[in-house]
Amino acid sequence: MPHRHTIHQHHYGWNNAFAAAVRIAPGASLEFDVADASGGQLRATSTIDEVTRLDFAKINPVAGPVFIDGAEPGDVLKVTLLSFAPSGWGWTANIPGFGLLADDFKEPALHLWQYDAATLAPALYGRWGRVPLKPFTGTIGLAPAEPGLHSVVPPRRVGGNLDVRDIAQGTELFLPVEVAGALFSVGDTHAAQGDGEVCGTAIESPMRVALQFELLKQQPLSYPRFRTPGPVTRHLDAKGYDVTTGIGPDLMQAARAALSSMIDLLTRQHGMPAIDAYLLCSVCGDLRISEIVDLPNWVVSFYFPRVVFE
Amino acid sequence: MPHRHTIHQHHYGWNNAFAAAVRIAPGASLEFDVADASGGQLRATSTIDEVTRLDFAKINPVAGPVFIDGAEPGDVLKVTLLSFAPSGWGWTANIPGFGLLADDFKEPALHLWQYDAATLAPALYGRWGRVPLKPFTGTIGLAPAEPGLHSVVPPRRVGGNLDVRDIAQGTELFLPVEVAGALFSVGDTHAAQGDGEVCGTAIESPMRVALQFELLKQQPLSYPRFRTPGPVTRHLDAKGYDVTTGIGPDLMQAARAALSSMIDLLTRQHGMPAIDAYLLCSVCGDLRISEIVDLPNWVVSFYFPRVVFE
Repeated sequence: MPHRHTIHQHHYGWNNAFAAAVRIAPGASLEFDVADASGGQLRATSTIDEVTRLDFAKINPVAGPVFIDGAEPGDVLKVTLLSFAPSGWGWTANIPGFGLLADDFKEPALHLWQYDAATLAPALYGRWGRVPLKPFTGTIGLAPAEPGLHSVVPPRRVGGNLDVRDIAQGTELFLPVEVAGALFSVGDTHAAQGDGEVCGTAIESPMRVALQFELLKQQPLSYPRFRTPGPVTRHLDAKGYDVTTGIGPDLMQAARAALSSMIDLLTRQHGMPAIDAYLLCSVCGDLRISEIVDLPNWVVSFYFPRVVFE
Repeated sequence: MPHRHTIHQHHYGWNNAFAAAVRIAPGASLEFDVADASGGQLRATSTIDEVTRLDFAKINPVAGPVFIDGAEPGDVLKVTLLSFAPSGWGWTANIPGFGLLADDFKEPALHLWQYDAATLAPALYGRWGRVPLKPFTGTIGLAPAEPGLHSVVPPRRVGGNLDVRDIAQGTELFLPVEVAGALFSVGDTHAAQGDGEVCGTAIESPMRVALQFELLKQQPLSYPRFRTPGPVTRHLDAKGYDVTTGIGPDLMQAARAALSSMIDLLTRQHGMPAIDAYLLCSVCGDLRISEIVDLPNWVVSFYFPRVVFE
């Protein structure tokens, strides 16, 4: 499908005063040239020292903003993810202070990935296994109504750094508009990620992304929602899962317990260093809430796909 | 496979002083005659009044306990779920005070199900749709080391009311042993449930269950873990999902927001009363933690399988 424009303009953080890169009518499609989450600070030849020297002011640039004609607060912007053109390389890092187990993994770590951008065949993870790929947009959203500059790190009602694994090809995403023109931007493309993004990074990978925009006037929408065109885990589930649980009255603690147990299991079963297991869990394992009603203890489960090792 | 015994003895709550129903050697298999979670208080002809009159002292009887020869604290009991013989009827209720949205849904509600126990074809949910079935054991666990009677409602380190949808046929479950003989029991069979069991009940359905037991001596295990023999959501995912999100610094609030938005969506799209949508979400929709690292806001997503309506 031809796209009128490829958007190269990037910005850091969200601000509804940023000048639009392009103005389009509803129904139009665009291509975006998306940098990796380090904004080019990490490269396919980077070393672990470069993780410690990351400039966080330049983290997670997003391509945009796109002004959609006629969009007003109270409208809903429908974004269809048409296609991804991945770059073939990526990185996964443990960045001290980030991640679900930041207290346990305080040292920086870096894994560099090469993958086949044409076939998207599962990517080799050292000598441990192969990770199935499914490109998606980690950060996708609109400018918030609140004036000023807002960090790109947390997602918000208008979307942003959602890091939802299934906002992938064919998905229709619905975002609540808070400002005139909606001011859409996208970034932080991932070649693969598990639900939770537990170490804080995915397979961070630059890509080009083609999107189509439609406008739904004055519709109720509390938070982003989306519709997937089909199954969401078939790239992962063929061989079943090893699953660990965490049980208790606090979902966060239960999630940490489930993940810690999975890391322990992987280190025991495969002789893998714990930090390598942590990064691997982030790119292919899923956090699910198995039950949230059996007072006072909830169950959070971590699902690790066995296909990685088979 | 022939089973030496069918266990009919039930008990209420967990207590390591309960007398064993049977004593077996590791490697043996048994069949269990499992009552529904109401312990027979609700039947295929029940009315909503009977929900309000439920005797909670008789809730969730479990069949057992089984004493496994040689089991000692520090061991792990491996339980393989061999087969299920479902009854063909079940119930789903909103019980005031229970459920993720207990503050929004204060009135009792009851839905009775009939399903084909032989084919397990998707079960009709009134005029709204059909729910794919996948029988599993809601409550499965061991007696805790702590003396005395413990409520059956919360799951614990030794398992119990885990309500994990994927502890189904072919799954191998690993439970940490805290007392001599392990004292295994099982109950609360469900014909279907989504991850979260959001309204507090599933398709509660009596069944017979065949299980095999093996003993792993002195192995580290913090909480229950399990291995599934294959994919876990293929009965649900063929037509993709409608997904709502909740975003914020508290996972519980985010889960509530995601579920509330899904109920709103179902009521708008299908004209379904909110209480019917709530019960439907509980039996087939999944709560997933999409990201838990983008400080300070996490994303919890509610996945509703579109196959229900197609």
